[in-house]
Amino acid sequence: MPEPIDLRRRQLLAGTATAIAAVSLSGLPWRVQAQEALPLPDYVKWKTAETLIVHSANTLETRRGAIGTSVVTASDRLFVRNNLPAPDAAIVADRDAWGVAFAGVKQPRSLTVAELKSLGVETVACVLQCSGNGRGFFPHKPSGTPWTVGAAGCVFWSGVPLKAVVEALGGVADGMAFITGTGGETLPPGIDATTVVVERSVPLRALEQALLAWELNGEPISLAHGGPLRLVIPGYYGVNNIKYVRQLAFTAEETKANIQTKGYRLRPVGVQGAPDQPSMWEMNVKSWISQPLEQMKAGRVVIQGVAFGGARAVKSVEVSLDGGQSWRPAPFVGPDLGPYAWRPFVLAVELKPGNYSLASRATDVDGNVQPRERMDNDNGFAHNGWEDHAVKLAVV
Amino acid sequence: MPEPIDLRRRQLLAGTATAIAAVSLSGLPWRVQAQEALPLPDYVKWKTAETLIVHSANTLETRRGAIGTSVVTASDRLFVRNNLPAPDAAIVADRDAWGVAFAGVKQPRSLTVAELKSLGVETVACVLQCSGNGRGFFPHKPSGTPWTVGAAGCVFWSGVPLKAVVEALGGVADGMAFITGTGGETLPPGIDATTVVVERSVPLRALEQALLAWELNGEPISLAHGGPLRLVIPGYYGVNNIKYVRQLAFTAEETKANIQTKGYRLRPVGVQGAPDQPSMWEMNVKSWISQPLEQMKAGRVVIQGVAFGGARAVKSVEVSLDGGQSWRPAPFVGPDLGPYAWRPFVLAVELKPGNYSLASRATDVDGNVQPRERMDNDNGFAHNGWEDHAVKLAVV
Repeated sequence: MPEPIDLRRRQLLAGTATAIAAVSLSGLPWRVQAQEALPLPDYVKWKTAETLIVHSANTLETRRGAIGTSVVTASDRLFVRNNLPAPDAAIVADRDAWGVAFAGVKQPRSLTVAELKSLGVETVACVLQCSGNGRGFFPHKPSGTPWTVGAAGCVFWSGVPLKAVVEALGGVADGMAFITGTGGETLPPGIDATTVVVERSVPLRALEQALLAWELNGEPISLAHGGPLRLVIPGYYGVNNIKYVRQLAFTAEETKANIQTKGYRLRPVGVQGAPDQPSMWEMNVKSWISQPLEQMKAGRVVIQGVAFGGARAVKSVEVSLDGGQSWRPAPFVGPDLGPYAWRPFVLAVELKPGNYSLASRATDVDGNVQPRERMDNDNGFAHNGWEDHAVKLAVV
Repeated sequence: MPEPIDLRRRQLLAGTATAIAAVSLSGLPWRVQAQEALPLPDYVKWKTAETLIVHSANTLETRRGAIGTSVVTASDRLFVRNNLPAPDAAIVADRDAWGVAFAGVKQPRSLTVAELKSLGVETVACVLQCSGNGRGFFPHKPSGTPWTVGAAGCVFWSGVPLKAVVEALGGVADGMAFITGTGGETLPPGIDATTVVVERSVPLRALEQALLAWELNGEPISLAHGGPLRLVIPGYYGVNNIKYVRQLAFTAEETKANIQTKGYRLRPVGVQGAPDQPSMWEMNVKSWISQPLEQMKAGRVVIQGVAFGGARAVKSVEVSLDGGQSWRPAPFVGPDLGPYAWRPFVLAVELKPGNYSLASRATDVDGNVQPRERMDNDNGFAHNGWEDHAVKLAVV
């Protein structure tokens, strides 16, 4: 994604720099490039290769048909997007020893994961989605990974509510308006830290749902997904969910890190990022079809997909077979895991031979409806337009 | 488990017969034997070894502390119990081609998984538990695997409701009272099939919730867990959830297979199995503590565990620190996934140095309460007594 970190620098920092550069700099068409069959990087060798598209060592996308039909996205299929290479795997060898410095509270101090575990436990199901999910559909070809729908998953996080930690530390200090998390990545020497550090601020209102999580889908969080401890802000874009969080500060202002001030800002095409533009915080209402994706035989077809409200619960979803000329409601299936989770939907239809444009359109509990059009923006963020997400299907 | 299949025969059918026999027939104390560090069998090499106790090639138990705190039990930690060795892995190479013969319906026929997928999709979260979970606590040392608490997990299954399939086949034929599923295992030649076949009947009322599932926790079901297709009867003991189901029949009477007529029958110690004894169908209300399990330092301790109602929803759970002399309610955490799922609970307490007996006691929505005592029975089935499940804890 187009945060202000030089792309080539990041690739050089990664382990398989040569291979990545070869693809990134190749003359392959921009979208086709995403389909290149790179092998899984070593740190995610435990993932299921055939379910993933490896864009680079730091960007792996879940294939559109591989999200499954249950609510949970299996960890070995979940997308990966790192702004910097992960820290050494040694940090997950003794998970309970990992320490986080808390600041901007009345009694600032450091706490280990072991200590955090004694403060309480909660589990939340939520959609984890990259701000640039859907970037691959923008015709102006924004810089950054051309994700289509697979930079997203719905998972269980377990950890301690940040609220409970704050209570144990005497409460938020006066005048603070943001929660600022800092990642534990090793920063390259000789560079101004603010240009590369993964440090993000979100509004204090997110304290309501924020979690310091040590478990993903019932297992200790892998290094690839931010273990031993990750800041999880349900309803917010992925970048705000700080991996290997090493500092959690309540601050009066947003961090000055480039990833906050210039990166992840919604702005017109061609405009530079700046602090007065909207930050990639709360997610919007969205849905897409996960199957069928390919030509099929005429007859009964079960259309499946997922819908979520982002920062609020999804209320309903409709499906169109004719590119949006007509819509019919599609029922949700499976248990409702709460406002931040996605809901799978299923609609069985009879299809005669012909060409179809299968689209889905979700509505959240506040009445926000997925728009038809994408909103063009420099980085290709926040794409929830249903038209680009439609599946062109030939039925024979 | 003590179904009437000769134990030694089953071990000989398994791949690693020698190693298993060496342990099973060793003079090791009965319970200690369960802790032997056997390697993972090849067909479950993808599981996380340190989270499992390998009792034999066909019986793997999740360690008590490894169930995690979210609702879902990760597939790579989920217990395995096979009554026969699994079929050849070739059956999961082309999953959609697997066929199931339907009988006892008005329009009997075979359907492939691909065809079943066109009939509908549902997801259910439920506890999968072996009838013998807790057998290791019975003092009379029943034959069969001495599971303690880890022959259980809570997972998502996705598939087609059996009801939808039956509707497509014209409905259940008149006079049928049972759902009888037959497993796809290859039976050893020269043996009367009824003595070994995995074929179970459950009452027709289970049609309400039964599922033909092709997905477990968002992924195609592995061979180890019954893929490509498993009959899932939420609320019923594991043995009724037929793996690699190859026939699904509605029948007027229960199957004559030994695993039904003599096996999985609740009877007094020393009595042989017979059809007039209760069959291991609906599960009972149960809970246990998953942590802490070991000596710890005085101070704040977060007690965690899981509670479920079995065939009906769990309503509440209490925790005792003094072996049942006093109880306090423990709140559930995380989303409620429906009546067949378990609910994690968490209770934070301050513990001074001393010895504690930590127990949990669940109550279901019908008011059934976990009893203190186990109900002794020949096979060590259905153990939900809270006293045996208590954790003895030294706080220093």
